[in-house]
Amino acid sequence: MAGGTGSRFWPLSTNDCPKQFLDPMGTGKSFLQSTFERFLPIIPQENFIIVTSAAYKDKILEHLPELSEHQILLEPLRRNTAPCILYAVKRIEAITPDANIVVAPSDHIVLNQVEFLEVIKEGLDFVDNSPNLLTIGIKPNRPETGYGYIQFDVEQTGNKINSVKTFTEKPDKELAQVFIDSGEFLWNSGIFLWSLKAIDTAFRQHLPELYQQFNEGKDLFNTSEEQSFINNIYPECSNISIDYGIMEKSETVYVRAANFGWSDVGTWGSVFTHMQKDENQNAVVGEAITSNCTNTVVHIPKGRIAVVDGLDGYLIVQQGPNLLVCKQENEQAIRNWVDEVKYKFGEKYT
Amino acid sequence: MAGGTGSRFWPLSTNDCPKQFLDPMGTGKSFLQSTFERFLPIIPQENFIIVTSAAYKDKILEHLPELSEHQILLEPLRRNTAPCILYAVKRIEAITPDANIVVAPSDHIVLNQVEFLEVIKEGLDFVDNSPNLLTIGIKPNRPETGYGYIQFDVEQTGNKINSVKTFTEKPDKELAQVFIDSGEFLWNSGIFLWSLKAIDTAFRQHLPELYQQFNEGKDLFNTSEEQSFINNIYPECSNISIDYGIMEKSETVYVRAANFGWSDVGTWGSVFTHMQKDENQNAVVGEAITSNCTNTVVHIPKGRIAVVDGLDGYLIVQQGPNLLVCKQENEQAIRNWVDEVKYKFGEKYT
Repeated sequence: MAGGTGSRFWPLSTNDCPKQFLDPMGTGKSFLQSTFERFLPIIPQENFIIVTSAAYKDKILEHLPELSEHQILLEPLRRNTAPCILYAVKRIEAITPDANIVVAPSDHIVLNQVEFLEVIKEGLDFVDNSPNLLTIGIKPNRPETGYGYIQFDVEQTGNKINSVKTFTEKPDKELAQVFIDSGEFLWNSGIFLWSLKAIDTAFRQHLPELYQQFNEGKDLFNTSEEQSFINNIYPECSNISIDYGIMEKSETVYVRAANFGWSDVGTWGSVFTHMQKDENQNAVVGEAITSNCTNTVVHIPKGRIAVVDGLDGYLIVQQGPNLLVCKQENEQAIRNWVDEVKYKFGEKYT
Repeated sequence: MAGGTGSRFWPLSTNDCPKQFLDPMGTGKSFLQSTFERFLPIIPQENFIIVTSAAYKDKILEHLPELSEHQILLEPLRRNTAPCILYAVKRIEAITPDANIVVAPSDHIVLNQVEFLEVIKEGLDFVDNSPNLLTIGIKPNRPETGYGYIQFDVEQTGNKINSVKTFTEKPDKELAQVFIDSGEFLWNSGIFLWSLKAIDTAFRQHLPELYQQFNEGKDLFNTSEEQSFINNIYPECSNISIDYGIMEKSETVYVRAANFGWSDVGTWGSVFTHMQKDENQNAVVGEAITSNCTNTVVHIPKGRIAVVDGLDGYLIVQQGPNLLVCKQENEQAIRNWVDEVKYKFGEKYT
């Protein structure tokens, strides 16, 4: 899934270049590229399908030139994860009706790829020829309020895979702490595994209207008429997430607890956590001189340089025509500033 | 005089674009253009002569397209103000041997142009047909350590023009305060007025070697051979200032005290003093949003924007590939950072 937009990483992220195409930590690879490479040891290149906005088609091919155009599914407009996944399911059905599927966001990080692949392989075994839907839950290490939580059935603890009791969207700090203390909750990674038959059945059962809209074009998937069919039905599709539409309703949902160094890297703060830092806890991407700086992120594009002096806990990001200098503790205001920039200076800066 | 280099205004100023070509206050005119326009009501356009480095010829013409190439005297290398002025004197001598001359740096500001022109006109009257050399002294308002000071003869106070007792280069704070308290000292503006004959005589008397070097080509000035003559002698010329070489030695030096809102704008601090500020004492040139900022300068080039948050007393300047974010109180370190940038990232950034 590579259709996200988002202004939290402005000025790195813009409408033309959302988070999945970024490399805020300076790893040399975009999130999209890293996600692709993460799966490559166990999933053949030709079996990848990227679902994205039509506007990002060229950018996807630029980041993943290994893929053929045909592997990129283009949404004419944004309709949340349920239609996105159902589109991919129908395309895969037209090619390999007995497939097992891994669904993953393209803009997260995983530090321990070996453990990640173990978890995915075990998960694929679990869902093969099974009606069960599996989600990967991350062992929480702090009462994070930016994540969804999954409560698993403690009766079964001891198994790696447990059935799911509840899903809870972003809780407040207090509730998040209760979750952590209980030992029954995991973070919702947004990574799902299932057999094609199981998820197809689940869509038919829990989102029958959406299912019907896609199933009417059943014979058009993987043909030259697929795109125009999709373009026709998409505006009418419900804007609904897979979590809300399927996972929270299905009786056959399981979770695999995992601990492979995962983050959805939703904020500059989380980027900073994962960046390499100098002896003054500054994280510099690009060519910059820091003088009397501590705990500061400096992100300068290739071909440019910066001199930064006398800052503690700041974020300095330059990209294209845009410059952001702000306190890290104020990063939640970035969205508002982007709105202000758009209003005052024009859309081209966002 | 428009041959200055200097890195104090980096990243606005670079080797390719030194201070005289800048507009750090966002007035819409470079210092050079403002200086030209300041004199234009009393000096015919064709009587201007710009002495600069050969490297800046095109840039001068770009800023002052009203001038003909012939009005731009090109120094093959930097040799301080005495050779620069003597070159112009010899050119003028070849055209108008009975000229009166105003010498002015091209990178200062004057806020009260009307008073300035009054002072210049009176000064020109004073030096016309006279052996006297006149300098313009500025009534000091603070114990500035960045300026030279001129002590005038108090015996004559009451006159606008007084003879000069001493020149003192940049004093320390304590001495500067003594100067101010004495009431006998003015800042040295670097603006000089004299008749061609008087300054020619002074050069012959006080810098005879330099004079000889130039005078050998007396007949070549204002001819097609002038440039190659200059290119030949310049490397051999002493690197000496007009203040040290002539003004401090001559017996016929006078000073006119003036108060026309002058600054040599030698530092970002002095730029800030003269900039228009918002209600939080921020000075913004270009398109920028400031949030929780006070006493901060933001200077963003056309076509770019910035969002700046949570800073007090900082300087944020973007230009070409370069970004500077620093505490204003550390601005004296800019030169060192520029050296570091040159060493680490290459000359192209300086």
